Amino acid sequence: MQIRQLFDTESSTYTYLVFDGREAALIDPVREQIERDLALARELELELSYVIETHVHADHITAAGLIRERTGAKTAASAAGAPCVDLHLEHGATLQLGATSITALATPGHTDDSISLLVPGAVFTGDTLLIRGCGRADFQNGDPGQLYDSITRELFVLPDDTSLYPGHDYNGRTTSTIGEEKRHNPRLAGKTRDQFIAIMTSLALPPPMKLAESVPANRACGGVKTS
Amino acid sequence: MQIRQLFDTESSTYTYLVFDGREAALIDPVREQIERDLALARELELELSYVIETHVHADHITAAGLIRERTGAKTAASAAGAPCVDLHLEHGATLQLGATSITALATPGHTDDSISLLVPGAVFTGDTLLIRGCGRADFQNGDPGQLYDSITRELFVLPDDTSLYPGHDYNGRTTSTIGEEKRHNPRLAGKTRDQFIAIMTSLALPPPMKLAESVPANRACGGVKTS
Repeated sequence: MQIRQLFDTESSTYTYLVFDGREAALIDPVREQIERDLALARELELELSYVIETHVHADHITAAGLIRERTGAKTAASAAGAPCVDLHLEHGATLQLGATSITALATPGHTDDSISLLVPGAVFTGDTLLIRGCGRADFQNGDPGQLYDSITRELFVLPDDTSLYPGHDYNGRTTSTIGEEKRHNPRLAGKTRDQFIAIMTSLALPPPMKLAESVPANRACGGVKTS
Repeated sequence: MQIRQLFDTESSTYTYLVFDGREAALIDPVREQIERDLALARELELELSYVIETHVHADHITAAGLIRERTGAKTAASAAGAPCVDLHLEHGATLQLGATSITALATPGHTDDSISLLVPGAVFTGDTLLIRGCGRADFQNGDPGQLYDSITRELFVLPDDTSLYPGHDYNGRTTSTIGEEKRHNPRLAGKTRDQFIAIMTSLALPPPMKLAESVPANRACGGVKTS
């Protein structure tokens, strides 16, 4: 299995191309980057089997629907995720890429439909757990207590040397590990559930710039007609 | 050996933290990112043995001198590189990090002091070879013919599956491989030396924004007094 990390500067979103042999999945592709991402898959001679969303995004519009139209890839998301996708992944559901299994972990809290995606030695955490941070929990049915439970019960139980691939980073960091975040994430290291909730409820962040536009578009896989 | 990739958004520069056990090197650190990079080294409980410059940069100011002052790390660059550094690396010179050797390859052409840094399975190419591109060759004694020779004789002779870590990317790509660039780099794949020179001399790029400021500062390791 190989992982290729891609970045969208405008929304600070990471997209991942994961592949084993010729079979590939794109995680969280951004609409504006579709030509870059499809060119890379083509140059690597990959067949896109799946486009997987870690959640319904509020800060960018997905390329999932367009990629499905252009490649025949199946779109996938949480069982609680966008109605438009082909596959709704329950907790523990797997997708197969060659010899590699991708396992969906329900990790709600940032949004009610957030999942993380586990592959051997690595986890794609979407906005559930970021490098030295985590996604906000104040809209789209977000819930800080549920976010704490998802992080501590589903992610912090993974081996410390599991590579962490986040959905965003705003400081130029690309990867971390589960052990590093357990020790050094300022919202979580040494914090109780109540302390975490207090931190998250005191953030007073402005709404995401594309909330009104992105959420309905992403529930429709990027505004493209569903098949 | 582990590699951590870091990005500076303003200059689109990649910095790399390479480590084996507790011994670490920083490649091409950016002055504005010094606190981020030193915090990461501290959190990973690493000792910075070396700060290595792939060349005298024209688009950002190095953190090398400041890091030397704060950590005692030795600074290193090409034999033709910044006069301020502790170690001038001839072609084939090695630096040791635990069991990992870092080998300097002289790859002039973008600048006359450009080196690439080879570790097991991967190469840090600075601006000599970028993902689907390469550094310009029109200032700091750059020479497109020499750049072609460096790429084809020093980098394209590495195994195809060697990971390529570039000094910059402007399109959100993080890594490539030598094989990929041999096949898909539009300036090099199927191009003769003369065709490459013709491409490079027709680019007509504006001067880098920080050329006048950066080059003298970087020849002094970031404007910090040499020890």
